[in-house]
Amino acid sequence: MNGTMKAAVMNKVGEIKLETLDIPTPKDDQVLVKIKHVGICGSDVHYFEHGRIGDFVVRDPIILGHESAGEVVEVGRNVKHLKVGDKVTLEPGYTCGKCEYCKTGRYNLCPDVVFMATPPYNGAFVEYVAYPADMAFKLPENMDTVEGALIEPLAVGLHAARTADAHIGQTAVVLGAGCIGLVTLMSLKAMGVSEVYVSDVIEKRLDKALECGASGVIRADKEDTVETINKLTNGQGADLVFETAGNKITTKQTVNLVKRGGKIVLVGMAPDATIDYDFISLISKEASISTVFRYRNLYPTGIKAVSSGLIPIRKIVTNFFKFEDTQYAMKYSIENARDMVKGVIEFD
Amino acid sequence: MNGTMKAAVMNKVGEIKLETLDIPTPKDDQVLVKIKHVGICGSDVHYFEHGRIGDFVVRDPIILGHESAGEVVEVGRNVKHLKVGDKVTLEPGYTCGKCEYCKTGRYNLCPDVVFMATPPYNGAFVEYVAYPADMAFKLPENMDTVEGALIEPLAVGLHAARTADAHIGQTAVVLGAGCIGLVTLMSLKAMGVSEVYVSDVIEKRLDKALECGASGVIRADKEDTVETINKLTNGQGADLVFETAGNKITTKQTVNLVKRGGKIVLVGMAPDATIDYDFISLISKEASISTVFRYRNLYPTGIKAVSSGLIPIRKIVTNFFKFEDTQYAMKYSIENARDMVKGVIEFD
Amino acid sequence: MNGTMKAAVMNKVGEIKLETLDIPTPKDDQVLVKIKHVGICGSDVHYFEHGRIGDFVVRDPIILGHESAGEVVEVGRNVKHLKVGDKVTLEPGYTCGKCEYCKTGRYNLCPDVVFMATPPYNGAFVEYVAYPADMAFKLPENMDTVEGALIEPLAVGLHAARTADAHIGQTAVVLGAGCIGLVTLMSLKAMGVSEVYVSDVIEKRLDKALECGASGVIRADKEDTVETINKLTNGQGADLVFETAGNKITTKQTVNLVKRGGKIVLVGMAPDATIDYDFISLISKEASISTVFRYRNLYPTGIKAVSSGLIPIRKIVTNFFKFEDTQYAMKYSIENARDMVKGVIEFD
Amino acid sequence: MNGTMKAAVMNKVGEIKLETLDIPTPKDDQVLVKIKHVGICGSDVHYFEHGRIGDFVVRDPIILGHESAGEVVEVGRNVKHLKVGDKVTLEPGYTCGKCEYCKTGRYNLCPDVVFMATPPYNGAFVEYVAYPADMAFKLPENMDTVEGALIEPLAVGLHAARTADAHIGQTAVVLGAGCIGLVTLMSLKAMGVSEVYVSDVIEKRLDKALECGASGVIRADKEDTVETINKLTNGQGADLVFETAGNKITTKQTVNLVKRGGKIVLVGMAPDATIDYDFISLISKEASISTVFRYRNLYPTGIKAVSSGLIPIRKIVTNFFKFEDTQYAMKYSIENARDMVKGVIEFD
Repeated sequence: MNGTMKAAVMNKVGEIKLETLDIPTPKDDQVLVKIKHVGICGSDVHYFEHGRIGDFVVRDPIILGHESAGEVVEVGRNVKHLKVGDKVTLEPGYTCGKCEYCKTGRYNLCPDVVFMATPPYNGAFVEYVAYPADMAFKLPENMDTVEGALIEPLAVGLHAARTADAHIGQTAVVLGAGCIGLVTLMSLKAMGVSEVYVSDVIEKRLDKALECGASGVIRADKEDTVETINKLTNGQGADLVFETAGNKITTKQTVNLVKRGGKIVLVGMAPDATIDYDFISLISKEASISTVFRYRNLYPTGIKAVSSGLIPIRKIVTNFFKFEDTQYAMKYSIENARDMVKGVIEFD
Repeated sequence: MNGTMKAAVMNKVGEIKLETLDIPTPKDDQVLVKIKHVGICGSDVHYFEHGRIGDFVVRDPIILGHESAGEVVEVGRNVKHLKVGDKVTLEPGYTCGKCEYCKTGRYNLCPDVVFMATPPYNGAFVEYVAYPADMAFKLPENMDTVEGALIEPLAVGLHAARTADAHIGQTAVVLGAGCIGLVTLMSLKAMGVSEVYVSDVIEKRLDKALECGASGVIRADKEDTVETINKLTNGQGADLVFETAGNKITTKQTVNLVKRGGKIVLVGMAPDATIDYDFISLISKEASISTVFRYRNLYPTGIKAVSSGLIPIRKIVTNFFKFEDTQYAMKYSIENARDMVKGVIEFD
Repeated sequence: MNGTMKAAVMNKVGEIKLETLDIPTPKDDQVLVKIKHVGICGSDVHYFEHGRIGDFVVRDPIILGHESAGEVVEVGRNVKHLKVGDKVTLEPGYTCGKCEYCKTGRYNLCPDVVFMATPPYNGAFVEYVAYPADMAFKLPENMDTVEGALIEPLAVGLHAARTADAHIGQTAVVLGAGCIGLVTLMSLKAMGVSEVYVSDVIEKRLDKALECGASGVIRADKEDTVETINKLTNGQGADLVFETAGNKITTKQTVNLVKRGGKIVLVGMAPDATIDYDFISLISKEASISTVFRYRNLYPTGIKAVSSGLIPIRKIVTNFFKFEDTQYAMKYSIENARDMVKGVIEFD
Repeated sequence: MNGTMKAAVMNKVGEIKLETLDIPTPKDDQVLVKIKHVGICGSDVHYFEHGRIGDFVVRDPIILGHESAGEVVEVGRNVKHLKVGDKVTLEPGYTCGKCEYCKTGRYNLCPDVVFMATPPYNGAFVEYVAYPADMAFKLPENMDTVEGALIEPLAVGLHAARTADAHIGQTAVVLGAGCIGLVTLMSLKAMGVSEVYVSDVIEKRLDKALECGASGVIRADKEDTVETINKLTNGQGADLVFETAGNKITTKQTVNLVKRGGKIVLVGMAPDATIDYDFISLISKEASISTVFRYRNLYPTGIKAVSSGLIPIRKIVTNFFKFEDTQYAMKYSIENARDMVKGVIEFD
């Protein structure tokens, strides 16, 4: 497809402007996708505000956004499973396929990953994206591109729950009721986990958690999370504990919330270089700490779970913004962090 | 508790009569339970009709029934987690605790199991049972003893689904829509399995399957199950295939229904000494066949799943009978097999 | 590298002749390998004798041989982990990298695999092969290309043992002491399995099994395998049973050899369309049947195991042949099947 | 058996004296064992020196020692698998058999465990012990009671290795070359782990590690462990990292030694209330931390591994002491900690 398109380019920290670029041409194994919806991730906001996340530094102009869905408008010659008109969601990490991690199915650990909106790679705040067809997943009739875009954060929750081997009959605690806390909660409920308790310090988020199926919520600034969970679990602690707040205090708390032989999963990443952790208690309980880095092989699962009604992922959206207002959307997200769970950019 | 009680004793094949026995005295680690509801299992009916199942032969008078729930009326001196008035369901297999299988948590394989209503051990078609307290599981407030009794068959379904490592996003086929087919279906849905298709030759049962959450049903005598599943799975077959009909034809079918790398679980036991099976296809697909024998460690899970509303187990009940009418109930079950899923004996 | 090379081409069933072909040019992601040793697999012999294996039919001239190792003589521009002079072994299956199976690390199930010496693809009975560099595994200093070529059959044994989750302290039975039986035996011993008993009807093979570490051997035509294993396991049966003979009788036997809760793995493929199997016993024991199709992700493991001395893979070789004598080697392999375990083609 | 026996009783901290007690009478499910050898564990020495370990405080006179083996001299009436004259090793933890942990096979987490030589329970520094027969494991002909006693520490190593799902082809680091470090090393090698590197600050221990099969050793006070492992693993880190030193520095190091997607197992317990740990690196690598508390179901495995020659457990013994000299043995162990790995008490 010849022609030009609009792209929301961040040329310097805190400043995104619409620019005109050539529409890319899909390669033989690619599809060209007209983007319809893109979720705003905390990482997008962070790059916008600070220009870096850890070792990843924005040095050149970059297009942010990696939770995207749209419509196929052109297909490469080798592409067989997609056709023009299909709605698709794009898994934003593209990996080498040849390293030990890729070959063993743990491609999220591939050192050569190309990940959308992680410098130096561009993302999806743009009208058209040419993308490898095997990472473009077709959405069924009954799903729209808002839901499609949200498969990305959902995949994080599913990966966290799968890593814990979450299953029916268990009790879980989710620390943090932001976007990742909520997708973890919904994933756990979808897998049959009987009781999921969610803690946070923001009332609105806890209301969302209840709406998304939490068995109970804990206002962590007003009650003692450990004490409450202790009571709720008959003094035993929870089978599974998920830290999603990315916070030092909650990270430390995990060991006091988990049952003997239980599992802790760190999903959020607290910014502290080190955290003083009580390993004596961890060992005495023979408990474990797993961690998750992004996700793998979960887009098809996420799509099925949303399509079948098992996971009402749309509930996490609190705000919509026009593509033209991307700069405003980012600023708004910074200034209203406590009132938002998930903002979504809409294209015409 | 001193006194006498009524027991439904089978003194010869096909003949159950109420007799008067002494109420048993619970030992230190036992509770005395006043039975309220007992499900009628296919094995009860089989012993009633034929006097044997394989190597298990009824030689002496026996009390049948092993899907039971009731109320605690007396507790042994060492029992701490139960008190008089508690509603409980009884897990019917009591094992040695000392063999390799018990110590590794696979107690269902204990060679020294004492299993209710399996000769020479008595079951629960009786007013009072003294039973090891650690195998008496307390029912929460919102569950009654009908649901409590049904935890037993539910545990079979849960064990089958767990054995297959069933999980969110998968597609499953359940062959057979009798009691075990339905509990397998409900267990799979509760674990997040996206699509569960059920086949049977009896329309009423398939209606039940739809009521219990089946994604679709197959009238196996009118359409070709393999062909239908092939269409429904885009030519790939199902991730998981459960044989619950205990039938030679469906057992053979499993390999043609399963996807490459998929899992077959044999839950029913076809009576045939051998079945000619297509192992070439099994190996070419790198598929596996697991089997299940009863269940283990699943009563707490079953109770939580029912109590939370995740599994509407009561739906499988089609008929209630009075305890006094046990003989009639057994005869009725034989004569109306096609119209029943689960009969339950009620005590006053 | 310009020039010509010799290739052992099978133009019709039973007839392999040396022909002169152009040396291939490696693509950017490939290496050009001068072949040094190629093992003769039963499948090579079968194609030579019958022109087909199941649905795979030789229609055009084909080069057989898929257990190969050699020396890198040229590297494509994108190849970084190999250099000219490196000794390598080639994993013969090359897969799409994009399907569900590849992405989840089960690439041996990829429907689009290109597998050496499986029609219509050529194999390694040829002086030079251009091959994807990520499937060319470097051999350490202390390994030669005979051992390198044998990593292929070893990978089958390792995959079988891993599929069974074989581990220290277990007891295993391996049915069949041909090449695959021996590599399974060696893999099990390397994983710490305490006792491995091997059965066969050929004395020479059983001697090899003892040489390779078998705890005991069974002459299946002279003693009753089931009875012997029963005695050796105190009436319990073996934790793990591997069928490697590809035989109906041994396949049927597996259920009588396995312990309660044990695992059967079918490695060989009996030619019978169906086999009448005793599923009642399988279910009563809650035993399982797994199957293996080739292998995945095991070349690095095989290389380490051989290099460290843990697995003396060279012991399985019984015969060497010159490349020029490939036709003779194939005929010899057919006529002396009972006296050979593994033949290897040597290049100058 | 009537009569009296000698017992090494600790009546106050640092003082063990031989006293005369009645020989106990075995109950129906017990055997009476004449103790032959008892290993001295670090915990015995710690109780002797400090009178407590964490919350476990010695308040009454206690008999220490829990790594024991001896000969059966009397059997209870229900005991069938043992007879007078059998050599046995005693698994020192006896659990309730009724709780969730026991029923699921994780009996090492049973809150009601009776563990030898952990206050208030007596251990095996005594001539006769009456013990539950199902926790007395018969030693084969070719094992003696020195090896039998050492099954206890070996079980810790096996449990650590199993917890990590250690397997053939992997690379591991073991931090600490004391008794637990060595049994972990030997367990890993027995499971086929290709390379095991061991670090410590005591040369003698590292020599022992080499003797026990270490692929290489690191003098942690003279070279940088992280740097060395980095070189040895081609910059990737180890698949498995075991902390056995019970030390803050090595605990912190684990995250820098482990590969992406790798596993850390904490076997030792550093005395520090908290340790400042780098969770950012842990999460970035998607690595996990497992912990182990004692062991479960591993005595039979340990016995088979030693009996078959796979694990030369006797190599860890550095010192023998006479039973009469128990007081001296304890003092010697305190004063010569750096020169000893494992001391063993011998009975006549």
